[in-house]
Amino acid sequence: LVPIVSVVGRSNVGKTTFLVKLIRELKSRGHRLGTIKHYRHDFEIDQPGKDSWRHAHAGSDVAVIAGPHKLALVQRLQEELPLEAIVAQMGPVDIVLTEGYKGADAPKIEVFRQGQSNDLVCPVDELVAIVADQHFELPVPQFDLDDVAGVADFVEGRYILGHASGPARQKESG
Amino acid sequence: LVPIVSVVGRSNVGKTTFLVKLIRELKSRGHRLGTIKHYRHDFEIDQPGKDSWRHAHAGSDVAVIAGPHKLALVQRLQEELPLEAIVAQMGPVDIVLTEGYKGADAPKIEVFRQGQSNDLVCPVDELVAIVADQHFELPVPQFDLDDVAGVADFVEGRYILGHASGPARQKESG
Repeated sequence: LVPIVSVVGRSNVGKTTFLVKLIRELKSRGHRLGTIKHYRHDFEIDQPGKDSWRHAHAGSDVAVIAGPHKLALVQRLQEELPLEAIVAQMGPVDIVLTEGYKGADAPKIEVFRQGQSNDLVCPVDELVAIVADQHFELPVPQFDLDDVAGVADFVEGRYILGHASGPARQKESG
Repeated sequence: LVPIVSVVGRSNVGKTTFLVKLIRELKSRGHRLGTIKHYRHDFEIDQPGKDSWRHAHAGSDVAVIAGPHKLALVQRLQEELPLEAIVAQMGPVDIVLTEGYKGADAPKIEVFRQGQSNDLVCPVDELVAIVADQHFELPVPQFDLDDVAGVADFVEGRYILGHASGPARQKESG
Protein backbone atom coordinates (compact mmCIF):
# COMPACT_ATOMS: atom_id res chain seq x y z
CA LEU A 1 0.00 0.00 0.00
CA VAL A 2 1.22 3.48 -0.86
CA PRO A 3 1.59 5.65 2.28
CA ILE A 4 -0.71 8.68 2.38
CA VAL A 5 -0.14 11.85 4.41
CA SER A 6 -2.70 14.66 4.45
CA VAL A 7 -1.90 18.33 4.91
CA VAL A 8 -4.87 19.94 6.62
CA GLY A 9 -5.69 23.29 8.17
CA ARG A 10 -8.17 26.12 8.07
CA SER A 11 -8.81 28.20 4.95
CA ASN A 12 -6.12 30.71 3.99
CA VAL A 13 -3.65 29.30 6.45
CA GLY A 14 -1.17 28.57 3.67
CA LYS A 15 -1.70 24.86 3.06
CA THR A 16 -0.94 25.00 -0.67
CA THR A 17 2.13 27.21 -0.18
CA PHE A 18 3.50 24.85 2.43
CA LEU A 19 2.69 21.73 0.44
CA VAL A 20 4.32 23.11 -2.71
CA LYS A 21 7.55 23.62 -0.74
CA LEU A 22 7.31 20.11 0.72
CA ILE A 23 6.73 18.61 -2.74
CA ARG A 24 9.82 20.40 -4.08
CA GLU A 25 11.91 19.22 -1.13
CA LEU A 26 10.83 15.57 -1.30
CA LYS A 27 11.15 15.58 -5.08
CA SER A 28 14.71 16.93 -4.81
CA ARG A 29 15.46 13.95 -2.58
CA GLY A 30 14.52 11.61 -5.41
CA HIS A 31 11.10 10.36 -4.33
CA ARG A 32 8.21 9.67 -6.67
CA LEU A 33 5.30 11.76 -5.43
CA GLY A 34 1.58 11.68 -5.95
CA THR A 35 -0.51 14.64 -4.79
CA ILE A 36 -4.23 15.13 -4.43
CA LYS A 37 -5.95 18.44 -3.96
CA HIS A 38 -9.43 18.05 -2.58
CA TYR A 39 -12.25 20.38 -3.54
CA ARG A 40 -15.55 20.30 -1.71
CA HIS A 41 -17.24 22.01 -4.65
CA ASP A 42 -16.91 21.67 -8.40
CA PHE A 43 -13.80 23.11 -10.02
CA GLU A 44 -12.78 24.20 -13.47
CA ILE A 45 -9.62 22.76 -14.97
CA ASP A 46 -10.06 24.14 -18.41
CA GLN A 47 -8.62 27.09 -20.14
CA PRO A 48 -11.85 28.30 -21.69
CA GLY A 49 -11.83 27.93 -25.45
CA LYS A 50 -8.65 25.93 -25.48
CA ASP A 51 -8.75 23.05 -27.90
CA SER A 52 -7.47 20.52 -25.46
CA TRP A 53 -10.57 20.41 -23.30
CA ARG A 54 -13.23 20.78 -25.98
CA HIS A 55 -13.75 17.02 -25.84
CA ALA A 56 -14.47 17.15 -22.12
CA HIS A 57 -16.91 20.02 -22.57
CA ALA A 58 -18.68 18.18 -25.38
CA GLY A 59 -19.64 15.43 -22.96
CA SER A 60 -16.79 12.95 -22.86
CA ASP A 61 -16.93 10.85 -19.67
CA VAL A 62 -13.16 10.48 -19.58
CA ALA A 63 -11.18 13.03 -21.60
CA VAL A 64 -7.45 12.46 -22.00
CA ILE A 65 -4.78 14.71 -23.44
CA ALA A 66 -1.70 12.69 -24.24
CA GLY A 67 1.72 14.07 -25.10
CA PRO A 68 5.27 12.76 -25.06
CA HIS A 69 6.01 13.95 -21.51
CA LYS A 70 2.63 14.32 -19.89
CA LEU A 71 -0.80 12.74 -19.70
CA ALA A 72 -3.81 14.66 -18.46
CA LEU A 73 -7.13 12.99 -17.74
CA VAL A 74 -10.48 14.44 -16.71
CA GLN A 75 -13.08 12.02 -15.48
CA ARG A 76 -16.72 12.84 -14.74
CA LEU A 77 -17.95 11.25 -11.53
CA GLN A 78 -21.39 10.08 -10.45
CA GLU A 79 -20.23 10.50 -6.87
CA GLU A 80 -17.05 11.57 -5.14
CA LEU A 81 -14.32 8.92 -5.04
CA PRO A 82 -12.86 7.90 -1.69
CA LEU A 83 -9.16 8.62 -1.20
CA GLU A 84 -8.15 4.97 -1.61
CA ALA A 85 -9.89 4.69 -4.99
CA ILE A 86 -8.01 7.75 -6.24
CA VAL A 87 -4.66 6.47 -4.98
CA ALA A 88 -5.35 3.18 -6.82
CA GLN A 89 -5.47 5.16 -10.09
CA MET A 90 -2.16 6.93 -9.52
CA GLY A 91 0.36 4.30 -10.55
CA PRO A 92 3.64 3.64 -8.74
CA VAL A 93 4.64 6.44 -6.35
CA ASP A 94 6.58 6.40 -3.07
CA ILE A 95 4.07 8.53 -1.19
CA VAL A 96 0.82 10.41 -1.76
CA LEU A 97 0.43 13.84 -0.17
CA THR A 98 -3.05 15.27 -0.03
CA GLU A 99 -4.28 18.78 0.57
CA GLY A 100 -7.53 18.49 2.44
CA TYR A 101 -9.33 15.24 3.27
CA LYS A 102 -9.46 16.06 6.94
CA GLY A 103 -12.37 13.62 7.27
CA ALA A 104 -10.39 10.71 5.82
CA ASP A 105 -8.37 8.12 7.66
CA ALA A 106 -4.84 9.10 6.56
CA PRO A 107 -2.23 10.53 8.99
CA LYS A 108 -2.52 14.33 9.10
CA ILE A 109 -0.13 17.26 9.38
CA GLU A 110 -1.90 20.46 10.36
CA VAL A 111 -0.69 23.82 9.12
CA PHE A 112 -1.50 26.64 11.54
CA ARG A 113 -0.88 30.37 11.35
CA GLN A 114 -1.72 32.94 14.03
CA GLY A 115 -4.42 35.40 13.10
CA GLN A 116 -6.18 32.91 10.83
CA SER A 117 -7.63 31.01 13.75
CA ASN A 118 -7.16 30.39 17.46
CA ASP A 119 -7.17 26.63 17.49
CA LEU A 120 -6.41 23.58 15.42
CA VAL A 121 -8.97 22.26 12.97
CA CYS A 122 -8.21 18.58 13.68
CA PRO A 123 -8.45 16.66 16.96
CA VAL A 124 -4.91 16.25 18.28
CA ASP A 125 -5.11 12.46 18.32
CA GLU A 126 -5.49 12.49 14.52
CA LEU A 127 -2.37 14.62 14.00
CA VAL A 128 1.11 13.23 13.41
CA ALA A 129 2.69 16.70 13.27
CA ILE A 130 1.90 20.41 13.51
CA VAL A 131 3.52 23.05 11.29
CA ALA A 132 2.90 26.45 12.85
CA ASP A 133 4.18 29.87 13.83
CA GLN A 134 3.60 29.14 17.50
CA HIS A 135 4.16 26.27 19.92
CA PHE A 136 1.27 24.16 21.18
CA GLU A 137 1.42 22.35 24.52
CA LEU A 138 0.58 19.10 22.83
CA PRO A 139 2.39 15.73 22.57
CA VAL A 140 2.85 16.01 18.78
CA PRO A 141 6.03 16.75 16.77
CA GLN A 142 6.03 20.44 15.83
CA PHE A 143 7.82 22.35 13.09
CA ASP A 144 8.20 25.98 12.15
CA LEU A 145 6.34 27.14 9.02
CA ASP A 146 9.71 27.61 7.31
CA ASP A 147 11.18 24.28 8.38
CA VAL A 148 10.38 22.41 5.20
CA ALA A 149 13.54 20.30 5.48
CA GLY A 150 12.51 19.24 8.98
CA VAL A 151 9.06 18.17 7.85
CA ALA A 152 10.57 16.39 4.86
CA ASP A 153 12.91 14.48 7.20
CA PHE A 154 9.93 13.53 9.34
CA VAL A 155 7.76 12.38 6.41
CA GLU A 156 10.66 10.60 4.75
CA GLY A 157 11.74 8.76 7.88
CA ARG A 158 8.33 7.78 9.08
CA TYR A 159 6.36 7.16 5.88
CA ILE A 160 8.68 6.70 2.90
CA LEU A 161 11.82 4.98 4.18
CA GLY A 162 10.03 3.42 7.13
CA HIS A 163 7.42 2.09 4.75
CA ALA A 164 9.90 0.65 2.26
CA SER A 165 12.09 -1.01 4.89
CA GLY A 166 9.36 -1.86 7.37
CA PRO A 167 9.85 -5.62 7.65
CA ALA A 168 13.66 -5.33 7.66
CA ARG A 169 13.58 -2.87 10.57
CA GLN A 170 11.24 -5.06 12.56
CA LYS A 171 13.74 -7.86 12.14
CA GLU A 172 16.61 -5.69 13.37
CA SER A 173 14.78 -4.69 16.52
CA GLY A 174 13.66 -8.26 17.25
CA LEU B 1 -11.58 -4.82 -25.00
CA VAL B 2 -12.94 -1.31 -25.44
CA PRO B 3 -13.36 -0.41 -29.13
CA ILE B 4 -11.18 2.48 -30.31
CA VAL B 5 -11.85 4.70 -33.35
CA SER B 6 -9.41 7.42 -34.39
CA VAL B 7 -10.36 10.65 -36.13
CA VAL B 8 -7.42 11.66 -38.30
CA GLY B 9 -6.72 14.28 -40.96
CA ARG B 10 -4.35 17.06 -41.87
CA SER B 11 -3.85 20.15 -39.70
CA ASN B 12 -6.64 22.72 -39.69
CA VAL B 13 -9.03 20.42 -41.48
CA GLY B 14 -11.52 20.64 -38.59
CA LYS B 15 -10.85 17.40 -36.70
CA THR B 16 -11.64 18.83 -33.26
CA THR B 17 -14.77 20.59 -34.48
CA PHE B 18 -16.05 17.39 -36.08
CA LEU B 19 -15.12 15.22 -33.11
CA VAL B 20 -16.83 17.58 -30.66
CA LYS B 21 -20.07 17.22 -32.66
CA LEU B 22 -19.67 13.42 -32.78
CA ILE B 23 -19.06 13.28 -29.01
CA ARG B 24 -22.24 15.31 -28.38
CA GLU B 25 -24.26 13.08 -30.70
CA LEU B 26 -23.02 9.77 -29.25
CA LYS B 27 -23.38 11.11 -25.72
CA SER B 28 -26.99 12.12 -26.43
CA ARG B 29 -27.59 8.50 -27.46
CA GLY B 30 -26.59 7.38 -23.98
CA HIS B 31 -23.11 5.96 -24.57
CA ARG B 32 -20.21 6.25 -22.15
CA LEU B 33 -17.38 7.89 -24.06
CA GLY B 34 -13.66 8.14 -23.59
CA THR B 35 -11.69 10.59 -25.73
CA ILE B 36 -7.99 11.07 -26.27
CA LYS B 37 -6.40 14.08 -27.88
CA HIS B 38 -2.89 13.35 -29.05
CA TYR B 39 -0.19 16.00 -29.00
CA ARG B 40 3.13 15.40 -30.68
CA HIS B 41 4.74 18.11 -28.56
CA ASP B 42 4.37 19.10 -24.94
CA PHE B 43 1.22 20.89 -23.89
CA GLU B 44 0.12 23.10 -21.04
CA ILE B 45 -2.98 22.13 -19.10
CA ASP B 46 -2.64 24.67 -16.38
CA GLN B 47 -4.23 27.96 -15.82
CA PRO B 48 -1.07 29.77 -14.82
CA GLY B 49 -1.09 30.77 -11.18
CA LYS B 50 -4.18 28.79 -10.40
CA ASP B 51 -3.98 26.97 -7.12
CA SER B 52 -5.13 23.68 -8.50
CA TRP B 53 -2.02 22.92 -10.51
CA ARG B 54 0.61 24.33 -8.17
CA HIS B 55 1.28 20.76 -6.96
CA ALA B 56 2.02 19.61 -10.50
CA HIS B 57 4.34 22.56 -11.10
CA ALA B 58 6.17 21.90 -7.86
CA GLY B 59 7.24 18.50 -9.17
CA SER B 60 4.50 16.03 -8.34
CA ASP B 61 4.75 12.95 -10.58
CA VAL B 62 1.00 12.42 -10.51
CA ALA B 63 -1.09 15.43 -9.51
CA VAL B 64 -4.79 14.90 -8.91
CA ILE B 65 -7.56 17.41 -8.32
CA ALA B 66 -10.57 15.68 -6.84
CA GLY B 67 -14.03 17.13 -6.49
CA PRO B 68 -17.53 15.76 -6.03
CA HIS B 69 -18.28 15.57 -9.77
CA LYS B 70 -14.91 15.49 -11.45
CA LEU B 71 -11.43 14.07 -11.09
CA ALA B 72 -8.49 15.56 -12.95
CA LEU B 73 -5.11 13.87 -13.06
CA VAL B 74 -1.83 15.01 -14.57
CA GLN B 75 0.89 12.41 -14.88
CA ARG B 76 4.51 13.08 -15.88
CA LEU B 77 5.82 10.51 -18.34
CA GLN B 78 9.30 9.18 -18.95
CA GLU B 79 8.17 8.25 -22.43
CA GLU B 80 4.98 8.52 -24.41
CA LEU B 81 2.35 5.90 -23.55
CA PRO B 82 0.97 3.69 -26.31
CA LEU B 83 -2.75 4.06 -27.01
CA GLU B 84 -3.63 0.74 -25.33
CA ALA B 85 -1.92 1.74 -22.07
CA ILE B 86 -3.92 4.96 -21.97
CA VAL B 87 -7.20 3.18 -22.66
CA ALA B 88 -6.39 0.79 -19.81
CA GLN B 89 -6.39 3.81 -17.43
CA MET B 90 -9.76 5.12 -18.57
CA GLY B 91 -12.19 2.93 -16.66
CA PRO B 92 -15.42 1.56 -18.09
CA VAL B 93 -16.50 3.27 -21.33
CA ASP B 94 -18.41 1.99 -24.36
CA ILE B 95 -15.97 3.42 -26.90
CA VAL B 96 -12.81 5.51 -27.05
CA LEU B 97 -12.55 8.16 -29.76
CA THR B 98 -9.12 9.59 -30.41
CA GLU B 99 -8.03 12.72 -32.22
CA GLY B 100 -4.75 11.90 -33.89
CA TYR B 101 -2.82 8.65 -33.51
CA LYS B 102 -2.67 8.13 -37.23
CA GLY B 103 0.34 5.85 -36.67
CA ALA B 104 -1.53 3.56 -34.29
CA ASP B 105 -3.44 0.41 -35.10
CA ALA B 106 -7.03 1.55 -34.42
CA PRO B 107 -9.66 1.93 -37.17
CA LYS B 108 -9.52 5.45 -38.62
CA ILE B 109 -12.02 7.99 -39.90
CA GLU B 110 -10.37 10.70 -41.98
CA VAL B 111 -11.74 14.24 -42.00
CA PHE B 112 -11.01 16.07 -45.26
CA ARG B 113 -11.77 19.58 -46.41
CA GLN B 114 -11.02 21.08 -49.82
CA GLY B 115 -8.45 23.81 -49.85
CA GLN B 116 -6.60 22.37 -46.85
CA SER B 117 -5.04 19.59 -48.93
CA ASN B 118 -5.45 17.68 -52.16
CA ASP B 119 -5.29 14.17 -50.86
CA LEU B 120 -5.93 12.02 -47.83
CA VAL B 121 -3.34 11.76 -45.09
CA CYS B 122 -3.96 8.04 -44.44
CA PRO B 123 -3.61 5.10 -46.82
CA VAL B 124 -7.11 4.11 -47.89
CA ASP B 125 -6.77 0.55 -46.59
CA GLU B 126 -6.42 1.95 -43.04
CA LEU B 127 -9.63 3.98 -43.30
CA VAL B 128 -13.06 2.75 -42.24
CA ALA B 129 -14.77 5.97 -43.33
CA ILE B 130 -14.14 9.39 -44.87
CA VAL B 131 -15.88 12.57 -43.73
CA ALA B 132 -15.39 15.22 -46.42
CA ASP B 133 -16.79 18.03 -48.51
CA GLN B 134 -16.12 16.05 -51.70
CA HIS B 135 -16.56 12.50 -52.96
CA PHE B 136 -13.57 10.20 -53.40
CA GLU B 137 -13.61 7.32 -55.88
CA LEU B 138 -12.67 4.91 -53.14
CA PRO B 139 -14.33 1.79 -51.70
CA VAL B 140 -14.85 3.38 -48.26
CA PRO B 141 -18.08 4.64 -46.63
CA GLN B 142 -18.26 8.43 -47.05
CA PHE B 143 -20.13 11.12 -45.15
CA ASP B 144 -20.67 14.83 -45.55
CA LEU B 145 -18.88 17.10 -43.05
CA ASP B 146 -22.28 18.01 -41.60
CA ASP B 147 -23.61 14.45 -41.41
CA VAL B 148 -22.78 13.86 -37.77
CA ALA B 149 -25.84 11.66 -37.27
CA GLY B 150 -24.74 9.46 -40.18
CA VAL B 151 -21.24 9.02 -38.76
CA ALA B 152 -22.73 8.36 -35.31
CA ASP B 153 -24.98 5.64 -36.81
CA PHE B 154 -21.92 4.11 -38.49
CA VAL B 155 -19.74 4.17 -35.35
CA GLU B 156 -22.59 2.97 -33.16
CA GLY B 157 -23.56 0.11 -35.43
CA ARG B 158 -20.10 -1.10 -36.22
CA TYR B 159 -18.16 -0.47 -33.01
CA ILE B 160 -20.49 0.07 -30.06
CA LEU B 161 -23.55 -2.12 -30.61
CA GLY B 162 -21.67 -4.57 -32.82
CA HIS B 163 -19.06 -4.83 -30.13
CA ALA B 164 -21.48 -5.36 -27.26
CA SER B 165 -23.62 -7.92 -29.07
CA GLY B 166 -20.85 -9.54 -31.09
CA PRO B 167 -21.17 -13.15 -29.91
CA ALA B 168 -24.99 -13.05 -29.94
CA ARG B 169 -25.02 -11.88 -33.54
CA GLN B 170 -22.60 -14.57 -34.59
CA LYS B 171 -24.94 -17.12 -33.07
CA GLU B 172 -27.94 -15.72 -34.95
CA SER B 173 -26.18 -15.91 -38.28
CA GLY B 174 -24.90 -19.44 -37.59
